[in-house]
Amino acid sequence: MKSIIIASTSTIHGSGYLEYLLDELKIHFKSTDHILFIPYARPGGISHDEYTNIVAKAFSAIGKKVTGIHEFENAAEAIKQAKGIFVGGGNTFVLVSQLYKNKVLLPIQNAIENGTPYLGTSAGSNICGLTMNTTNDMPIVYPPSFKTLGLVPFNINPHYLDPIAGSKHMGETRETRIKEFHAFNTQPVIGLREGSWIAVKGNNLTLKGPLDVRIFEYDKAPYEVSTNSDLGFLK
Amino acid sequence: MKSIIIASTSTIHGSGYLEYLLDELKIHFKSTDHILFIPYARPGGISHDEYTNIVAKAFSAIGKKVTGIHEFENAAEAIKQAKGIFVGGGNTFVLVSQLYKNKVLLPIQNAIENGTPYLGTSAGSNICGLTMNTTNDMPIVYPPSFKTLGLVPFNINPHYLDPIAGSKHMGETRETRIKEFHAFNTQPVIGLREGSWIAVKGNNLTLKGPLDVRIFEYDKAPYEVSTNSDLGFLK
Repeated sequence: MKSIIIASTSTIHGSGYLEYLLDELKIHFKSTDHILFIPYARPGGISHDEYTNIVAKAFSAIGKKVTGIHEFENAAEAIKQAKGIFVGGGNTFVLVSQLYKNKVLLPIQNAIENGTPYLGTSAGSNICGLTMNTTNDMPIVYPPSFKTLGLVPFNINPHYLDPIAGSKHMGETRETRIKEFHAFNTQPVIGLREGSWIAVKGNNLTLKGPLDVRIFEYDKAPYEVSTNSDLGFLK
Repeated sequence: MKSIIIASTSTIHGSGYLEYLLDELKIHFKSTDHILFIPYARPGGISHDEYTNIVAKAFSAIGKKVTGIHEFENAAEAIKQAKGIFVGGGNTFVLVSQLYKNKVLLPIQNAIENGTPYLGTSAGSNICGLTMNTTNDMPIVYPPSFKTLGLVPFNINPHYLDPIAGSKHMGETRETRIKEFHAFNTQPVIGLREGSWIAVKGNNLTLKGPLDVRIFEYDKAPYEVSTNSDLGFLK
């Protein structure tokens, strides 16, 4: 049975890395004490080793060991053998480029289909959607495609931000950007606020965390859905 | 002689479309009363006609007529015949996709080389750099390449924003994003604040407008350069 956590962010303000999710992760990864970490998104350009160390330290609080996928000779084989997978945030363009380069998109899809629990945060959540077209990241490298894992039948916009009242900056709000996306694409977009996550269990999708989500459907006014709601109605 | 205005934005807070630049544009386009407008970036997904109407209205204040490139059968030929070119803002991914699709990158480079005055704002400024890798826009469509006009030997980050003091949002600041860019690329980036522009006259590059720019060079701490400075030192 598919078991996925799609989290807006790894870190909420005033709290440590993954700290707000640790109780949930204890349950999510209860079948294994070893997590395969995919550090490809390299936040701030840090190395795969540096990033893996941060993640290992966070998971040690719930008794889990972490190994970076870059430590294996065969990345696809590492995914096949993994008992739990975490894809961390950083830059979605860098992440997706590396997923294609290392030919691991299909192995990840297969592993999840076979029941390997998956955690994504930020960029690692973005790739759970149909495409990465609704990332907030700067396009610092050119990936071979914007198509991603398609584990859910919509796109994710992590770190969703409501318009800032009284801002004098002329850049687009997040809502305007997603409206622009719908001038060229038709799939729904979930604006996932920091602290929220989507829990996928088999065919059930549920919104978790303290906040509501904002949903953008093609040719409809955006609307809010409350936490703990079933999101299975989105196609 | 090359004659280019690379502006951070079309519109500053509390002022009409292009209003803050009109005195400058009177001089920049003094050799013609007809501007060819390239509306490909479609801000907010508006149509080419709607966008061209907004621009025509703004330019009518200084006695210039505006025609949209989409009104011509042959876009490359329209550029060759143009006496002045304006590429407006919107979404850089949409703009660059259309520039490639309509095969107009080389014609624009040639026209500028031959002295046709060019104005870019926002996305239209982004494409003046070596690549569009430092755009702030959402990647709502997939362009065939991130390479752009290369009219200046660096990249542009328009609408440059300083970090917001006390923000609780965990998304990256603009400075962090550009630092990430330099983990994968080596060309300099100019963070151009709203209200600023770069004036290119032949081989001379000068910063104009009321504000300083923030310059990001590979493997160096970012630094400020004052308005009215020569930017020709950047390679």
